[in-house]
Amino acid sequence: MECIVGYSSDTDFPIENLPYGVFSTASNPRKRLGVAIGDKILDLSTVSNLFNGPRLTKHQHVFQQDKLNAFMALGHECWKEARERLQDLLSRKDSELQGQQGCFVDQKDATMHLPAEIGDYTDFYSSMSHAFNVGCMFRSKENALMPNWKHLPVGYHGRASSVVVSGTDLHRPRGQVFPEGSTAPQFKPSALLDLELEVAFFVGGPPTKLGHPVKIDEAQDRIFGLVLMNDWSARDIQKWEYVPLGPFLAKSFGTTISPWVVTIEALKPFMTQNTVQDPQPLPYLCHSDNFNFDINLSVSLKPEKTGVKTTVCNSNYKYMYWTPKQQLAHHTVTGCNVNPGDLMASGTISGPENNSFGSMLELSWKGTKEVQLKDGTTRKFLQDGDEVIIEGFCQGVGYKVGFGQCSGKVLPAL
Amino acid sequence: MECIVGYSSDTDFPIENLPYGVFSTASNPRKRLGVAIGDKILDLSTVSNLFNGPRLTKHQHVFQQDKLNAFMALGHECWKEARERLQDLLSRKDSELQGQQGCFVDQKDATMHLPAEIGDYTDFYSSMSHAFNVGCMFRSKENALMPNWKHLPVGYHGRASSVVVSGTDLHRPRGQVFPEGSTAPQFKPSALLDLELEVAFFVGGPPTKLGHPVKIDEAQDRIFGLVLMNDWSARDIQKWEYVPLGPFLAKSFGTTISPWVVTIEALKPFMTQNTVQDPQPLPYLCHSDNFNFDINLSVSLKPEKTGVKTTVCNSNYKYMYWTPKQQLAHHTVTGCNVNPGDLMASGTISGPENNSFGSMLELSWKGTKEVQLKDGTTRKFLQDGDEVIIEGFCQGVGYKVGFGQCSGKVLPAL
Repeated sequence: MECIVGYSSDTDFPIENLPYGVFSTASNPRKRLGVAIGDKILDLSTVSNLFNGPRLTKHQHVFQQDKLNAFMALGHECWKEARERLQDLLSRKDSELQGQQGCFVDQKDATMHLPAEIGDYTDFYSSMSHAFNVGCMFRSKENALMPNWKHLPVGYHGRASSVVVSGTDLHRPRGQVFPEGSTAPQFKPSALLDLELEVAFFVGGPPTKLGHPVKIDEAQDRIFGLVLMNDWSARDIQKWEYVPLGPFLAKSFGTTISPWVVTIEALKPFMTQNTVQDPQPLPYLCHSDNFNFDINLSVSLKPEKTGVKTTVCNSNYKYMYWTPKQQLAHHTVTGCNVNPGDLMASGTISGPENNSFGSMLELSWKGTKEVQLKDGTTRKFLQDGDEVIIEGFCQGVGYKVGFGQCSGKVLPAL
Repeated sequence: MECIVGYSSDTDFPIENLPYGVFSTASNPRKRLGVAIGDKILDLSTVSNLFNGPRLTKHQHVFQQDKLNAFMALGHECWKEARERLQDLLSRKDSELQGQQGCFVDQKDATMHLPAEIGDYTDFYSSMSHAFNVGCMFRSKENALMPNWKHLPVGYHGRASSVVVSGTDLHRPRGQVFPEGSTAPQFKPSALLDLELEVAFFVGGPPTKLGHPVKIDEAQDRIFGLVLMNDWSARDIQKWEYVPLGPFLAKSFGTTISPWVVTIEALKPFMTQNTVQDPQPLPYLCHSDNFNFDINLSVSLKPEKTGVKTTVCNSNYKYMYWTPKQQLAHHTVTGCNVNPGDLMASGTISGPENNSFGSMLELSWKGTKEVQLKDGTTRKFLQDGDEVIIEGFCQGVGYKVGFGQCSGKVLPAL
């Protein structure tokens, strides 16, 4: 598809993508909505009047907000109309954008912010290889998967306040740990700081009513789009605290997401077969259509001292056992209500191969082996100064639909 | 203390209390802030100009909001000034309130709403008797408490979206269960629906910065006040889903809180000794001053058919092992940020006696004995039509500081 904005063929953000985000600039510090196109951002606040189709005409105010929630709330028919209008505006030679002063901003001049106000954040545990690997390490190969794992998408409530946007550096957390061989717990900086490669979706559509589940066949219309996520984890804190109520402070010191929300509409060409589920889940979790996506994912480490970037993991979103539709249907089946802007994450996405494991815990196999970096150093877990960079893209013919980066650096404990 | 509003000596809301809430009326459906006094509500939106002390003069707008968050954010010096001003206005014979038309509303004419927008909700597990009882049931007396339990206030992230105000009836949840003796999981209405007697505090003060813990000595200034809570729980769903990541859908179908937030200032006369902690916790959790409260708590059941109310539990907040200061210091010690309006709950509060257990799970000892009701029926868990009523009060000399009710009825599964 032609675009009035020029970009190279390997851009993450061609006209086939059009992800939404929230940005500001030094010259205009107001947070506003934008769409990434090549190296530019289309500032939606300057063109909200151009969304004059049958559905969006009366909702143009959503493009004047400082977060995506109101747009997310409109629902999938409006999202589709917005996308079609944007592709029209960005492709027509006589486009209304041509004369519009200041509607494009260079991405390099923009500061990105969280795309939405996240009311609630949930983290699932939906990659079988990851669950299996962790089960092997902490139990045994025979009992690696818990009995419930193949019957429901296991998940837990996470902390919404500490979800931050890519580029936010995080201090190594201090916390309570009980190292092996100790006689009492200790308070110290986490020695086993880890990353988790994840992908999360934003819930869209109007708020649901408490007591009214989102049925599996309605779930797709309530999934707005995806972002990359690093679910930072302090393994030593986690090990001591998590029984019996699950991960808590080992996770809530920070969770990083990429700033651009790639819509389901943009991902549709990259739909792929769902993972075969055996045993077949209960009917409320069954859908026959595909809702899995071929998204190449990678994790790289870049130590501050050398600045040399090493890719330590190549994985793919398609390894997910449970689909986002199943996650959302399950999450709401007891009547739990959801709101536009709620965030639901995949859990660590590991593939079957050793180099596709999505955490240092797995890559170093519980610290029993070294991960070699290109700068000559090795890692078992993260060191101060390490920047973790998660990237993801779908490969089309002659174009990519990319996610940009989800990055963050480990600062020393305060 | 004299009050210009008349009330009986057993009111929950004398001038010594002055809890804050959010209400509306049929004649004025706008949500607005109020203070309960006797059977009335002082409508703060009508008297915001009277908060003309040194700190509040420039913040009068917080009394014009539709939720308490902005007031909570001001911090404890402002809360103190507001309370003193309110006690002055409500006690002086020549009070400015005397001529103020429409500043009082009858509570019976008001609809109560959630007092604050709850960004994040956390549930602790801080009553030793409860943790011990549950441990005995599911493990053994010898291993009842997990090794970490006396070293840190165990807790988990809950679901904020489904926290509802007292009076909201809830449908019995349907969900995935694996009954004993079955060969496969089933999808059905929960057969083991339970209540949990809890007390929760609202966080106040300005938002904290990610990475910056609230130190134990600063924690008190960040605790705005307390509400009663019923943490409804579907035990059969919980049992099947909760390993290894903790309770999820078994809790998130609804959590009920009482509408009036009783401030720490009002509770100070009822401070009592902290529970002796052995072993002594790590220094970041230690405080020598008392921050425990003598609050009488009760749970009653009122079946719809008979309307006869039976008190099934008499407990007390003072049985808490961990104080709210310890909970908040722990919650933030890894750097997790908190916001005004965040809600942190105690976990089920059980006392040492059989009739002080705060859940049906414990009262019926895992369903092995019947709880007798006054209408002649018995219960192991909750039945459709059962209204659960939690009440709480501190007994002063000649007055009570009460919480009102936290109630909700079980409706049949949809």
